[in-house]
Amino acid sequence: MPRYRILVEYDGGPFVGWQAQANGPSVQSALEEAVFRFCGERIRVQGAGRTDAGVHAGGQVAHLDLESTRRPAVLRDAVNHHLGPLPVSVLAAEEAAPDFHARFSAVGRAYRFRILNRRAPPALDRGRVWHVGTPLDAGAMDEAARRLLGRHDFSSFRSSECQASSPLRTLDRLDVRREGEEIVLYAEARSFLHHQMRIIAGTLREVGAGKRTPDDVSAALEAASRPAAGPTAPPHGLCLTRVWY
Amino acid sequence: MPRYRILVEYDGGPFVGWQAQANGPSVQSALEEAVFRFCGERIRVQGAGRTDAGVHAGGQVAHLDLESTRRPAVLRDAVNHHLGPLPVSVLAAEEAAPDFHARFSAVGRAYRFRILNRRAPPALDRGRVWHVGTPLDAGAMDEAARRLLGRHDFSSFRSSECQASSPLRTLDRLDVRREGEEIVLYAEARSFLHHQMRIIAGTLREVGAGKRTPDDVSAALEAASRPAAGPTAPPHGLCLTRVWY
Repeated sequence: MPRYRILVEYDGGPFVGWQAQANGPSVQSALEEAVFRFCGERIRVQGAGRTDAGVHAGGQVAHLDLESTRRPAVLRDAVNHHLGPLPVSVLAAEEAAPDFHARFSAVGRAYRFRILNRRAPPALDRGRVWHVGTPLDAGAMDEAARRLLGRHDFSSFRSSECQASSPLRTLDRLDVRREGEEIVLYAEARSFLHHQMRIIAGTLREVGAGKRTPDDVSAALEAASRPAAGPTAPPHGLCLTRVWY
Repeated sequence: MPRYRILVEYDGGPFVGWQAQANGPSVQSALEEAVFRFCGERIRVQGAGRTDAGVHAGGQVAHLDLESTRRPAVLRDAVNHHLGPLPVSVLAAEEAAPDFHARFSAVGRAYRFRILNRRAPPALDRGRVWHVGTPLDAGAMDEAARRLLGRHDFSSFRSSECQASSPLRTLDRLDVRREGEEIVLYAEARSFLHHQMRIIAGTLREVGAGKRTPDDVSAALEAASRPAAGPTAPPHGLCLTRVWY
């Protein structure tokens, strides 16, 4: 029973998230249905990151097992064909070792969060950026971001529904850069807590607006309590860009 | 009667084009309707470039006259408010001289055409790029593009429905660059013929695929006959990026 590893890009907008759920279409189910239409096998596609509803991916990784052996390029093309108009695309496919697990073998994940920081709302990047119409200080946001680097108890920056057994995480990278009209957050960690990036974005936005100082962000982290941090930013600014193994 | 100049961004996907038409929603009509909802005036919005159905703009310029004097920032924000969910956004507004004309005062226009050149179809940039799944030689495309620079009879590169009185145009810039998985065409001219950029993109794609040489493109230009050039590329790779005055 060969195992395949696939690299997947998707627009999270029309989905309830990566994970299959009863309340609507998921990216996982879309891929599983496309595999079924291709080869008639009902299989499970396991993803590296269970992105929320509305969150995008440019570099999601998943694995799946088939009864039959298929050429990886054929698998990629056939799944893309059967995905039809859904905004999900298999960028690459390869055979993987039998013990490769997209989620548990991953040693690093990268996310990008885009804020469009101009008065006018987005037309071309609608659904891809968080629109913040008042000026933000990207330098202050970057300074505050440094306070979150390293290994910490991120209880203030996790959803109340987070199911991780420990709130400890190590943030290896968190940069904030102004790129034209956008302010872009880049983050890397072995793994992230539920809503961690979105709460970080919502909190740094308050720093950018002058409502919090970098010291306030340090204090919010030390408080280890969700209400100490800022609001959860909307999902559509967020994109899972890469997974390392 | 004050005249206003506005800078407009839009996703051309849901529209029949810039120009108001009987057969569906246009960007022009959407703006005119939003102005009406704002101030109750039925006015005409004149654009610099009459983009086709599906063609996008990041820097369309238009002008409009109002009976009443309005602060330009209020006009911008109110029109954006009344555009609601439509993917059209007024980026800037300013008062203009009474003789300013968005179309006839323009001295230059810039377009960008994006080709996604990878096997897998786009998910995140769907509707923003022309997907060409087989490898293209961007260097050959750029070499062929140089043959089109300067003042020429572009009869081979205009739609049969083009209403311009002369097929003579001066192409000031036409660069082709590979940018990661994309091949991007950048073009500048005082004005363009109908479908000119899309026929250029369709022809250069054939050069990239090895079906035509740069010399063939020179010959197609000299033939001054539409069938001598390649097919018209789809509209959704094209974006009007800037207009100069």
